Amino acid sequence: MKQSIGFVGLGQMGQPMALNLLHAGFELRVFDVREERLTPLLEQGAQRAQRLEDVTEPGGIVVTMVPDDRTLLAVTLGEDGILRRIGQGGVHLSLSTVSPEVAAQLARVYGEQGSHYLVATVLGRPEVARAAQLSIFLSGHSGAKGRVLPLLQVLGTHIYDLGERVEVANIVKLGYNFLIATAIEAMGEAAALAEQCGADRAQFLRMLVESPLFKGAVYEGYGRMIGERDYSEARFPVAMGLKDVELVLRVAEHARVPLPYAEIVHEHLRAAQMSGPSHEDWSVLADFVMQAETGAAAAARAGR
Amino acid sequence: MKQSIGFVGLGQMGQPMALNLLHAGFELRVFDVREERLTPLLEQGAQRAQRLEDVTEPGGIVVTMVPDDRTLLAVTLGEDGILRRIGQGGVHLSLSTVSPEVAAQLARVYGEQGSHYLVATVLGRPEVARAAQLSIFLSGHSGAKGRVLPLLQVLGTHIYDLGERVEVANIVKLGYNFLIATAIEAMGEAAALAEQCGADRAQFLRMLVESPLFKGAVYEGYGRMIGERDYSEARFPVAMGLKDVELVLRVAEHARVPLPYAEIVHEHLRAAQMSGPSHEDWSVLADFVMQAETGAAAAARAGR
Repeated sequence: MKQSIGFVGLGQMGQPMALNLLHAGFELRVFDVREERLTPLLEQGAQRAQRLEDVTEPGGIVVTMVPDDRTLLAVTLGEDGILRRIGQGGVHLSLSTVSPEVAAQLARVYGEQGSHYLVATVLGRPEVARAAQLSIFLSGHSGAKGRVLPLLQVLGTHIYDLGERVEVANIVKLGYNFLIATAIEAMGEAAALAEQCGADRAQFLRMLVESPLFKGAVYEGYGRMIGERDYSEARFPVAMGLKDVELVLRVAEHARVPLPYAEIVHEHLRAAQMSGPSHEDWSVLADFVMQAETGAAAAARAGR
Repeated sequence: MKQSIGFVGLGQMGQPMALNLLHAGFELRVFDVREERLTPLLEQGAQRAQRLEDVTEPGGIVVTMVPDDRTLLAVTLGEDGILRRIGQGGVHLSLSTVSPEVAAQLARVYGEQGSHYLVATVLGRPEVARAAQLSIFLSGHSGAKGRVLPLLQVLGTHIYDLGERVEVANIVKLGYNFLIATAIEAMGEAAALAEQCGADRAQFLRMLVESPLFKGAVYEGYGRMIGERDYSEARFPVAMGLKDVELVLRVAEHARVPLPYAEIVHEHLRAAQMSGPSHEDWSVLADFVMQAETGAAAAARAGR
């Protein structure tokens, strides 16, 4: 019989992952603050954790896929939280894209009580999670990794062990999100230039991915959205993108690595958030190439 | 019998393209200031043009693949140049990545004498040219395009007609080179961050292209070079990259499109040119992420 596992956070990513674990024969106790998210899982045999405390079993495994540092800290360190209940040998496996500092902090406090906090960040959109084809970056205490490998093998195709430093998986994931953001910004700038000079914006980005130079989901998917100026299919909403780019900048400042590209993307994402509907995809930042300049120029004129 | 064509500029890109034309049965009159470049073509039956003027036949087609604006203007407008000899109905097909202004200027002067200047910029490295798998962006006078299509069909797999505005193909090509440069810069910044935070630089970039997010020659090829800090295989030397990014900035200024990403790449390419051996690949700019900041920080301290 497979193990019984706690699973907290059944949103766009958590839900397909939890379903895959169920289908692979794991027993799940599931928790989410939004009740309706539990329905598809309960229908497939998951057990509802009435309260957060019910999700954790002493010495067991709890998986979390929550949106940000604040939520992770709440479900972990709160009165009914995972840390207090997981006990000796228990493992908290965190899949979220959160800050490296929080990862390091949690690994420390878990370690002090003889339990483990592991990080496994994942690369892929909800449909990739559904197809169990995620890339997974695992870091933390070596001894505990063996216990979570069977789960991770259900969830993804590529599993990379990045060593003992628990925050490395967070940094790698943030680095990749930064690279996606820069690709969006670059396509936005290039498309603006091409269009302004008489080329067709959508064709410009289409020809690019028809060449052998640029392939893959980022240039193909976001390229189409930027080319057609259609940001309604939110693969990743502006607010989430802004959160990640802010995390990147914080990590970079701490590590004393200059990231001029991240600063520009940050500025354009903020402009997008201030002026657009927040449910739009973060690739809308590509449209703030021109506006930002107009704004800067206006500010410069006003300052004269 | 196939047509006899003039071909000027038999460097890394021109040579494989000219060879493919020969093999497809075109007769070629070839010219290059560097004699030794002609050898492989003469061996395959090309005719040597002793002087530049011999390359052009009245009413014929001359193809040029030269490194920059200056060389293109010299072979075109000089005393023995193509313009004076090509006559009524002749076609000058320019494959080089040069400035849009020069393209527009040349199209105008050719048009005034009843001949045609067409632009066909190409995307792909020398081995792609050798395999006749280039992507080709064609723009200029519609009536003249039919005459060069049989040549282009020999050289590439994708041929895009971008309309009558002759400089559009130049702009599209510059836009793509800008996107390659931004990808290099972004990988450099991200790799610096990952490495500084304890991840393995080469692994960080390898995992990226193993994911479905980033595929294609740019992330795979340059990613490996940046990951391993090996810039010795010059796919595209620093000086050429710098020239193209400077053209991009000039076009952007003229079109009033802000390109903050291009400005940063320009700065790092200049730093690379000033301090490194000039035969290195332009992806070496990825290593100037840290140095540039150190320089800026030093300047700020000195200014205090």
